[in-house]
Amino acid sequence: MQGELHHDPVIAEQSTTRLLLACPDRPGLIARVSGFLADAGLNIVDADQHSTAEGRFFMRMVFDSVAGEALTELARRFEEEVAAPCEMEHRFAESSRPKRVAIMVSREDHCLSDLLWRWRSGELGGELVAVLSNHPDHAEQVAAVGLPFHHVPVDPADRTAAEREALDLLGELDLLVLARYMQVLSEAFLRELAAPAINIHHSFLPAFVGADPYRRAHERGVKLIGATAHYVTADLDAGPIIDQDVTRVSHSDEVPDLVRIGRDAERLVLARAVTAHLDDRVLLDGERTIVF
Amino acid sequence: MQGELHHDPVIAEQSTTRLLLACPDRPGLIARVSGFLADAGLNIVDADQHSTAEGRFFMRMVFDSVAGEALTELARRFEEEVAAPCEMEHRFAESSRPKRVAIMVSREDHCLSDLLWRWRSGELGGELVAVLSNHPDHAEQVAAVGLPFHHVPVDPADRTAAEREALDLLGELDLLVLARYMQVLSEAFLRELAAPAINIHHSFLPAFVGADPYRRAHERGVKLIGATAHYVTADLDAGPIIDQDVTRVSHSDEVPDLVRIGRDAERLVLARAVTAHLDDRVLLDGERTIVF
Amino acid sequence: MQGELHHDPVIAEQSTTRLLLACPDRPGLIARVSGFLADAGLNIVDADQHSTAEGRFFMRMVFDSVAGEALTELARRFEEEVAAPCEMEHRFAESSRPKRVAIMVSREDHCLSDLLWRWRSGELGGELVAVLSNHPDHAEQVAAVGLPFHHVPVDPADRTAAEREALDLLGELDLLVLARYMQVLSEAFLRELAAPAINIHHSFLPAFVGADPYRRAHERGVKLIGATAHYVTADLDAGPIIDQDVTRVSHSDEVPDLVRIGRDAERLVLARAVTAHLDDRVLLDGERTIVF
Amino acid sequence: MQGELHHDPVIAEQSTTRLLLACPDRPGLIARVSGFLADAGLNIVDADQHSTAEGRFFMRMVFDSVAGEALTELARRFEEEVAAPCEMEHRFAESSRPKRVAIMVSREDHCLSDLLWRWRSGELGGELVAVLSNHPDHAEQVAAVGLPFHHVPVDPADRTAAEREALDLLGELDLLVLARYMQVLSEAFLRELAAPAINIHHSFLPAFVGADPYRRAHERGVKLIGATAHYVTADLDAGPIIDQDVTRVSHSDEVPDLVRIGRDAERLVLARAVTAHLDDRVLLDGERTIVF
Repeated sequence: MQGELHHDPVIAEQSTTRLLLACPDRPGLIARVSGFLADAGLNIVDADQHSTAEGRFFMRMVFDSVAGEALTELARRFEEEVAAPCEMEHRFAESSRPKRVAIMVSREDHCLSDLLWRWRSGELGGELVAVLSNHPDHAEQVAAVGLPFHHVPVDPADRTAAEREALDLLGELDLLVLARYMQVLSEAFLRELAAPAINIHHSFLPAFVGADPYRRAHERGVKLIGATAHYVTADLDAGPIIDQDVTRVSHSDEVPDLVRIGRDAERLVLARAVTAHLDDRVLLDGERTIVF
Repeated sequence: MQGELHHDPVIAEQSTTRLLLACPDRPGLIARVSGFLADAGLNIVDADQHSTAEGRFFMRMVFDSVAGEALTELARRFEEEVAAPCEMEHRFAESSRPKRVAIMVSREDHCLSDLLWRWRSGELGGELVAVLSNHPDHAEQVAAVGLPFHHVPVDPADRTAAEREALDLLGELDLLVLARYMQVLSEAFLRELAAPAINIHHSFLPAFVGADPYRRAHERGVKLIGATAHYVTADLDAGPIIDQDVTRVSHSDEVPDLVRIGRDAERLVLARAVTAHLDDRVLLDGERTIVF
Repeated sequence: MQGELHHDPVIAEQSTTRLLLACPDRPGLIARVSGFLADAGLNIVDADQHSTAEGRFFMRMVFDSVAGEALTELARRFEEEVAAPCEMEHRFAESSRPKRVAIMVSREDHCLSDLLWRWRSGELGGELVAVLSNHPDHAEQVAAVGLPFHHVPVDPADRTAAEREALDLLGELDLLVLARYMQVLSEAFLRELAAPAINIHHSFLPAFVGADPYRRAHERGVKLIGATAHYVTADLDAGPIIDQDVTRVSHSDEVPDLVRIGRDAERLVLARAVTAHLDDRVLLDGERTIVF
Repeated sequence: MQGELHHDPVIAEQSTTRLLLACPDRPGLIARVSGFLADAGLNIVDADQHSTAEGRFFMRMVFDSVAGEALTELARRFEEEVAAPCEMEHRFAESSRPKRVAIMVSREDHCLSDLLWRWRSGELGGELVAVLSNHPDHAEQVAAVGLPFHHVPVDPADRTAAEREALDLLGELDLLVLARYMQVLSEAFLRELAAPAINIHHSFLPAFVGADPYRRAHERGVKLIGATAHYVTADLDAGPIIDQDVTRVSHSDEVPDLVRIGRDAERLVLARAVTAHLDDRVLLDGERTIVF
C-alpha cells in the first residue's frame, strides 16, 4: 500500500426515489405530500418547494428508494389521494434507473470532452448511450471511451434526411444534449424525439441570440462574455434557461480570445445544467425554470 | 406627475411568523411540523430543511403571521405536541417585531455607512437603535440619520471601564454588529451582552486570523483577498462563519490598494450576514452555520 | 493613544501627470513616447498600451507631476516632436487638478449614497460639485455632506425647460454621472453639456435595453442579473460600455428581489466606471472602450 | 460543404520572441529597453511593466520573432548595452520553441484530463512529453492521445528509488506539472529536476495547508472552497502563488460534495497557471509572482 498524502473520500450515493410536482398553490400542500410519504413509511432525504407570485406551487421530494411494483402501487395511491384532489402534475423518478442520454456535436469538442470525462468519473448522474456528429472528427475520442459514434453529415439544402437518420440511430432517449451542435433542428425533429433537449449557447441570453455571438460581443465592446444552457424549443435560443455564467474579458481580448476564454464557461454551464436535469432538479414554470 | 422612464416596483413585505428548529433526525419530521401548522390553519410561505451527515435535522418555516396571545398559545401547543416528543430546540420569531440592533465601529466607516443606508432604505430587516465608537469621527454622520451616537474611548491598559460603559449605553439588544470595531471584546462583555454579535474580518478565514490581514495577504502574494462575517466567540476570528466573499487582486496592488479594494467585499459580506441573521435564516450547528 | 487591534495604512497618492494617446499603429511608438519622457527627465510610474486588430495604438503614461507653464511647454514640444509626426490624438491630465463632477439622480439613491461616501472617503479621484434631481427626496442627504442640491422637476410634455435649467445650474463640468436618473436626455442637452456623461443601466447590456429591465429579466427567466456603466450617447443604452457585472439570482427571486439584489451591482459597477474615468484610464476606440 | 450555423474563427498565433527582465527601478528603463528593440528594427506587440514599492522593476516585452543566430547576437548586444549597465536579470524566449512539459499525477484525473484536452486543442502553449503516475490507472487515457505513460509506484518507506526513476524517465524538462500528485517530493528531487514545478493545491492558500483540505474546510464551515496553483518549493504548499480561485458552497455540501465541486476550480486554476507560465507571463519577485 502506498501512503498517499491526501486521500479524498469516495463519493457513494444511495439510491433514492424523487417526486416532482406542480399544482395551484393552496394551504396544506407540504403537510399533505410529506404526510403521504410519512404514512408510507418513507424517510424524506431532501425537500424543496417554491410558490410563485402567480400562485403556482412546485415541489421536489427525495426519499427512500422505492422501485418496481412497490413504486407503481405508491404512484397509484399518490395519484388518487393527493395528486387528483390537488390538480397536480407530477412524476416519480428512480435514481437507480439512470436516464439515457445522447450527445450531438459539431467541430468544437470542449463540451463533448468535458461530458465524456464527467460520465467516466461517475459525476453525470445519467447514462451516455451515443454521440452523433455532422463531422467525423471525434470518432476516435468517442470510441476510446467505449461509446457508439455516429457520423451523420447534413445536407444544408435538405436537413430532413439527416434528421431522420439521427432519430433512427439515437432511438429512445431521456435527454438529448446539444454540446455545440451547430445545426438548427426542425420542429418535426424535436416532436419526434419526444425527449427534452438541452443546448449550450455561447452568449449570455437574451443578448446575442443567433449566429456568431462572440464576434457580436466583441463589436459591442462588452466586458463580460457569457454562456447559457437552455431547453431547446422551436424558437432559436428562446427556450427556458437552466443555467448561465459569465467570464470577465477586456479590450485586449480579440474574437479568437473570446472563443478560447468562453469555452471554459460553456462546458461548466452545460455540465451543471445537464447534471441538474439528470438529478430531476429542474421543473418548468411556463417559459422559466425552477432549479432546486 | 412626472413620467419616469423606468419604474421599479415597491418592495412590500407582508408580516410573517418564523419557526426555527433543530433536533435529532428521524423519519416524519417534515410531515409532523407541516401537519401541525396545517392543522392550525396556517399557510406555509417558505420552508427549508437540512439533515447533516451527523444525523441532525434543521428546519425553518415561514408562515402566516401569528402574534400576541395567539402566538403564545401556538408556541405552547407546539412545545407539547411536537418539540418535546422530538427533542427539539426551537424558537418562534415575528417579522413584525423587528430586532433591536446596535453597531460598534472604529475609524473605518465603510461598513457603518453601508448599514445606515440599508437601514434607511428599509432593506435591513431590523431596527438600528444606536452606534457606539471608540473614536468621535462618525458622530455627525450618525446624527444625520437620527440615531444616538455614543463615543466611548478605550483605555488600552484597562478595557473594563469602556466595556462597562458600552453595556450600559447599549441596553437590551437582539444583535450587536461589529462593523470594523478594532478592539478585542472580553468574554465577560460577550456574556453580559446576552445577544449574538456579528463581526466582519477583512480576510478569507481561516487564512490571516488576527491583525493586519491585508499586509499579510500582500506578503504571501495571494491573488484573491477576502472578507468573512462570523459570530463572535471568545476565540479571536474563530466563531461560526455566516458569509464570505473574495475579490481578485494582482501583483500591482500594494497594501493600500488591498485596503481600498477590500472595503467593497467587507461591506457586502457584512450586510448579507446581518440581513440573514435578522431574517432568522441562520441556525447554529456546533461551530458551523446553516444559512437558509 | 489607543491601541487599535488592526491599523490599516493610510492611502496617500502622489501627484502625477497622465498622458493619453491614440494613433495608427507602427513600430517604435513605445520607444518614441518613453524616450521623449526620459529626455525630459520624467520618471514613468505606470505605462499601458494596446494595439487593436484594426491597427490602432492606444497608450496611457503616468509620470512625475508636471504642472502650470512647465506642462504647457512639455505639451507644446510633445505635439511638435511626437504627436504631429505620428498623427496622434492625445491629452495631458494632472492628477492634482481633480475633475469637476456633478450627479443627476431620480428616486433611487443607492448609487448617489455610494458615490457620496466614496467622495467623502477620498476614493473617488475627482471633485463632486453638485447633485441635481427631478425629485426633492435627497435634499437633506446631499446637504449633510456640504454639497449644493438642485431640485429640477421635469415636465414630461416638454423637457426643454428642465434641461435648460439643469445646464445653467451645473455650469462647467468635466463629467456628469447619471446615478439612476430616470429621464431621457436630449441630444441638444448632451451637446451643450460638452462633457462626457456616464450612465448606469440596470441590466447586462445589450440585453434588456430600455425600460423595466428587471421585470423583463424575470419574465425571461435569466439566472444572472446585471448592471452596465456606459458613456451616454444619443442612442438609448447604446453608448460605449466601461464596466459591467452580474449577480446570481434564482427562481425564488421575484421582481422586487431583483431590484434589491441588483442595487449592489449597480453601485459597484458605476463607482468602478466613474473612478476609472476620473483616473484617466478610459479611452474611446470607436464604440468600444479601452480601460487601462 | 456544410453550412454551419455559427463559425468560430480559427485561433492562429504568430511566432514572437519574449524578453523578461527584472532590475532595480530607476528612470528611463522603458525608454532604454524599447529604444533598444526599436533600433534593432523589432516591432513590439505587447509590453507590460511593474514597479514594486520595494523599488524593483519588472518587464515583459513581446516582439517580432527573432531566432537562431540572430537571437544569439541580439541577446549578446542586449546584455552589453542594457542588461549589464542596469544590473538586470533577464531571459529571451521564443514562442516557436515550445517548452517541454511533463505531468505527474496520482489517482484523481480531472486535472490530467483537462491538460490533455487543452494540449490536443492547441491551447496549452507548450509541448507535453510524458505523464508519470504512482498508479497505473491512467495508462489507457494517456496512450489514447499518443503520449508515453510511466507507472512509477512509490515505496512510502523510501521514496528515493521512485524519485530516481522518475528523474531518469522524464529527462530534460522546461516544466513539471503536479496535477494532483499526492506524494511529497524531496528537495533533492527538485534540485536535480532543474526546472520549475507547478502544483495545484485544493484549498485557498494559506488556508488549509497540507493534507485533507476539503475535510478541514468542511469542519471550519467555510462558505467558499478554493484552489491554488503555485510553484513548488521545499516548503509544503508555501511556494509563490500563480493563480487562485474559489467556488461558493453551502451547509448542504458534505465533504464528498466539496471534493466534486472543487474539481472544476482545481483544473481551471491549474490550467491558467500552466498557460501563464508557458507563455512566459510569470516572473518571480521573491516569494511572490508577477503575472503579466
